[in-house]
Amino acid sequence: MNVVVIHGSTRKNGNTEYLTYQAVPKNEGTHIYLRDYRITPIIDQRHEEGGFTPADDDMGKLAHIMLQHDILLFSTPIYWYSMSGPMKTFIDRWSQIMRDPKFPHFREELKKKTAYLIAVGGDHPAIKGLPLVQQFQYICQFFDMTFGGYVIGTANKPGQIIHDQTALHAASMLLKKPEN
Amino acid sequence: MNVVVIHGSTRKNGNTEYLTYQAVPKNEGTHIYLRDYRITPIIDQRHEEGGFTPADDDMGKLAHIMLQHDILLFSTPIYWYSMSGPMKTFIDRWSQIMRDPKFPHFREELKKKTAYLIAVGGDHPAIKGLPLVQQFQYICQFFDMTFGGYVIGTANKPGQIIHDQTALHAASMLLKKPEN
Amino acid sequence: MNVVVIHGSTRKNGNTEYLTYQAVPKNEGTHIYLRDYRITPIIDQRHEEGGFTPADDDMGKLAHIMLQHDILLFSTPIYWYSMSGPMKTFIDRWSQIMRDPKFPHFREELKKKTAYLIAVGGDHPAIKGLPLVQQFQYICQFFDMTFGGYVIGTANKPGQIIHDQTALHAASMLLKKPEN
Amino acid sequence: MNVVVIHGSTRKNGNTEYLTYQAVPKNEGTHIYLRDYRITPIIDQRHEEGGFTPADDDMGKLAHIMLQHDILLFSTPIYWYSMSGPMKTFIDRWSQIMRDPKFPHFREELKKKTAYLIAVGGDHPAIKGLPLVQQFQYICQFFDMTFGGYVIGTANKPGQIIHDQTALHAASMLLKKPEN
Repeated sequence: MNVVVIHGSTRKNGNTEYLTYQAVPKNEGTHIYLRDYRITPIIDQRHEEGGFTPADDDMGKLAHIMLQHDILLFSTPIYWYSMSGPMKTFIDRWSQIMRDPKFPHFREELKKKTAYLIAVGGDHPAIKGLPLVQQFQYICQFFDMTFGGYVIGTANKPGQIIHDQTALHAASMLLKKPEN
Repeated sequence: MNVVVIHGSTRKNGNTEYLTYQAVPKNEGTHIYLRDYRITPIIDQRHEEGGFTPADDDMGKLAHIMLQHDILLFSTPIYWYSMSGPMKTFIDRWSQIMRDPKFPHFREELKKKTAYLIAVGGDHPAIKGLPLVQQFQYICQFFDMTFGGYVIGTANKPGQIIHDQTALHAASMLLKKPEN
Repeated sequence: MNVVVIHGSTRKNGNTEYLTYQAVPKNEGTHIYLRDYRITPIIDQRHEEGGFTPADDDMGKLAHIMLQHDILLFSTPIYWYSMSGPMKTFIDRWSQIMRDPKFPHFREELKKKTAYLIAVGGDHPAIKGLPLVQQFQYICQFFDMTFGGYVIGTANKPGQIIHDQTALHAASMLLKKPEN
Repeated sequence: MNVVVIHGSTRKNGNTEYLTYQAVPKNEGTHIYLRDYRITPIIDQRHEEGGFTPADDDMGKLAHIMLQHDILLFSTPIYWYSMSGPMKTFIDRWSQIMRDPKFPHFREELKKKTAYLIAVGGDHPAIKGLPLVQQFQYICQFFDMTFGGYVIGTANKPGQIIHDQTALHAASMLLKKPEN
């Protein structure tokens, strides 16, 4: 399966990961755990004469991996009704990658890809996670990238996700169903 | 004015700051620029036996400042249809502060406060910034904190915000009007 | 099952009905098809001295049926990214029912109930149906009524809903799962 | 001013109308008050062999008026966190107009127009009115029509809108400012 899963959780083997493995098993596809990489926060230098100061971190490597796959699955616990900080920091850096001469076609390349979202939260995520879904949709829209679908799971304590049968089923179908 | 402004921009003197100063002038209230502080990303240790490993950074200091004010104004450029990464990292850490014995009343204290949001974006922010507004509303709801209102401004290049007369006027009225 | 299903579709045996029957089979619970009743649009007389002019239609009867059930399942096709006109007309009239001496406890009674939503649309409903979900959540919040959950199905032409396996499964679980 | 205002309120001289007149004075542009017209609810006959049964009401007349203007301003009180029932009934009928041989270019014509929204509510409309804004945005997107902007006012009792200075100012600027 030509899919890369970008895991935004800061905790190993959490509910979000468990739900995500229903869509893309651990031994299939490429799995990136953002917590294992160094990504520095963006400094907005879009309007400076010299542009962005190159960052000495793993961002370029991760951007390369993204571009090598057709399907991007973003997997994040819901922290404060949005994606995790590490995932936000990662996505913020796309603004820099888009202006990096090493990635001259980043925007055009993303246009050809399909993105999915899996998110898990503990506080009424089926409702309070909707702004996160809309945010992802706007991100996809920006790149004219297909937003293939999303699954929101409900869990709080470790292991609880196994009780959300609807989410587990939906995740297992996520990459199989036609887009909606 | 007993207000603390928490600036999430990574760029000095940007459009977001300009708009924010219409609501709280630079020489009034307390202004915190997150870019001047060190805040490490949260590691979710809520469910570990020993709880959170204390972080050696400025987060405690900033939490203290928040608690000393009645009004919290969050000011952020819209990065990828949500708050800036530094502001997300800052808010994520509240989950740790809430479990920090040095802040036994963080949640109860926030309940008494009123929060405002000022955000500026370049890509149809009046529409595509709405998920960010809803996210803030859920954050306020979590603490049972009053969400006093918000202003969304439109600007892209440096200085452009001066053309958004509606936002400038709305910002100047933001802390004066009755909550809605 | 002490549930009343309020069907907002104007078409018989459509996709929305099919999906809804996965949650509440046709021969279980009470099924109300709004298209079979006469409901006149509200005229806002909240602020008139004499209050509302009583309407000569089926609204009172339907309000009575609602109150006799513990679970309310609203089932609507997505028309222009919200509920169908007939369902909107029906819900608008609640403002009048709330001030009708024949229904002195309408608001208090709804507080005890649990509401569900099933909606089907053809234009990316998993995303573009989210405003409808949020609207329902605010309606529930107004009455302090529990919002038990929702299912959004994708279908356009008659019969297409059978291909949305995720929605069919989610609907079949909807009234069985713990609230989230 | 080549603008038609479509008023969805069922009450004369209400807060929504007052706010709307700040954008388009009563004696400028064309003002349509939906409450003065007969519009029957749509019956979804899109998939019937013979198509839609023509409705004997004022819908065709109103569709003609819409097409004669470049700017469409939709003005509605917020009823149950969305547009008023009469306005929803009106918009639902567009599905029929789009298939009416008398209006062969309805969709193409709307593409050239700019739409605005003015809405007034009493229950935290700046937050709880956002689903309505998003719904309008999706409607505009469907037609590839420009969504020029919106103003949300806060008022409950008759006359209260005069206290929402921010909304009054924003309405007065609405058709003057560049789109965002």
